[in-house]
Amino acid sequence: MKVKTPIQVRYQETDQMGVVYHANYLVWFEIGRTAFIEALGFEYAAMEDQGIVSPVIDAHVYFQQPIRYGQQAYVHTSLESYDGIRTTYRYEVTDEDGNIAVSGTTKHVIVKKENFKPTSLRKKFPEWHQAYVKALGDE
Amino acid sequence: MKVKTPIQVRYQETDQMGVVYHANYLVWFEIGRTAFIEALGFEYAAMEDQGIVSPVIDAHVYFQQPIRYGQQAYVHTSLESYDGIRTTYRYEVTDEDGNIAVSGTTKHVIVKKENFKPTSLRKKFPEWHQAYVKALGDE
Amino acid sequence: MKVKTPIQVRYQETDQMGVVYHANYLVWFEIGRTAFIEALGFEYAAMEDQGIVSPVIDAHVYFQQPIRYGQQAYVHTSLESYDGIRTTYRYEVTDEDGNIAVSGTTKHVIVKKENFKPTSLRKKFPEWHQAYVKALGDE
Amino acid sequence: MKVKTPIQVRYQETDQMGVVYHANYLVWFEIGRTAFIEALGFEYAAMEDQGIVSPVIDAHVYFQQPIRYGQQAYVHTSLESYDGIRTTYRYEVTDEDGNIAVSGTTKHVIVKKENFKPTSLRKKFPEWHQAYVKALGDE
Repeated sequence: MKVKTPIQVRYQETDQMGVVYHANYLVWFEIGRTAFIEALGFEYAAMEDQGIVSPVIDAHVYFQQPIRYGQQAYVHTSLESYDGIRTTYRYEVTDEDGNIAVSGTTKHVIVKKENFKPTSLRKKFPEWHQAYVKALGDE
Repeated sequence: MKVKTPIQVRYQETDQMGVVYHANYLVWFEIGRTAFIEALGFEYAAMEDQGIVSPVIDAHVYFQQPIRYGQQAYVHTSLESYDGIRTTYRYEVTDEDGNIAVSGTTKHVIVKKENFKPTSLRKKFPEWHQAYVKALGDE
Repeated sequence: MKVKTPIQVRYQETDQMGVVYHANYLVWFEIGRTAFIEALGFEYAAMEDQGIVSPVIDAHVYFQQPIRYGQQAYVHTSLESYDGIRTTYRYEVTDEDGNIAVSGTTKHVIVKKENFKPTSLRKKFPEWHQAYVKALGDE
Repeated sequence: MKVKTPIQVRYQETDQMGVVYHANYLVWFEIGRTAFIEALGFEYAAMEDQGIVSPVIDAHVYFQQPIRYGQQAYVHTSLESYDGIRTTYRYEVTDEDGNIAVSGTTKHVIVKKENFKPTSLRKKFPEWHQAYVKALGDE
């Protein structure tokens, strides 16, 4: 499963190089990830309502060509791996012609918000777990 | 009392106009406000530890000249008014030559973090109250 | 003429108060302004291609109630005043129930990008001028 | 050579998890990189004055423990590799007790601002080149 999400470039996201500032692609990845989770039928906000948050533990980003203000961008999000504990998402940002501008991955765990103690997606959210296992198979 | 705080312009804060993006001055105001509170002997983080937050209820910003990456900037923060409930801070952002680039004010209340119900600085934090009344007199 | 633009709250826009950080509403205003300009048939990027930028000269923001992650927000943008030189936009941010969360205005001029010398929208972009005068009448 | 730069956590940098939002560490890396360049006796702004910019081509970030508002953070920047064309910086973000919170690398090239065509640091900025070769040896 791959979810395509349109991104409207914000003027605020540009820098004086005249292109989107590199850290903002992690924000676009987050938008793609949120859309991916929704496409599976879940809401990240609902997870937080139960006192669980899902921090990033590593991120890898490859910048191939810049995106500029006035361009239409898209983020394509898929599941790279999932083992019941760790979830790795893969992202490709493309321009209006389908050229890949930026790609990357982020790896996540879930932790209790109050103390950042890790917990297991499989045990804590069995329905998410099922959907993630299925999404991985659909790849 | 007026507190002067140096600001190092971040590349990320510029936009493709080649100047600091306008919304970032509200962030610089926040840095000045934090320094002002510390100069009075308090810490904003300590207020939050007691379940109280201090949202902005209005902001007015006047942009006279742009600040660019590579310039040294300062934010000068003072207390414009305080009535036990509402606190209004005044800010001036200057460049390395003392020219005013941006000025403005923000007005704040304090509320309970859990439900955003307003409370009174005078009653909830009597020591802050005393210091604010005194800072106003020192103006 | 009033233009309504949906805003999807980004996790990155929240702060530890659990609500959208106040400076981000200026970014949302910018999104509304861009949509307003497009609704008039123009593109801000095209103006910049001619070496002209349109900085904010003042901003006033009133924060009535917070917007949270997971809520649907909208920014409603209209033209408050226009005199051939200065353009003032008015914004209202509403939640999914139509409650006003934040309102405000921003005033803009146009300047040459290379030296920030002011120029006249009426003279430099007569078609924009006509459309703005008309939009003001439609109010 | 390793350059240590203090970072004051901005409230704006937190998110509703109650910690610094992950993309902001790339901004902190940039602050460390700027300080590293200055420690070598150069200014990034001076490079841009000559029509050259230095985009990131890849970034790797490892998040070990969160940084919170109210903590003192530091970014420690060093040169991981340099070949005359590509420069890779290494970063460690530590808290006030010296614990590593975040680490990572960013790889950069230099390109002409007008068309993003790559050029060579060795040829275009021979003094920088000498200093980078020397900094690598000092490691």
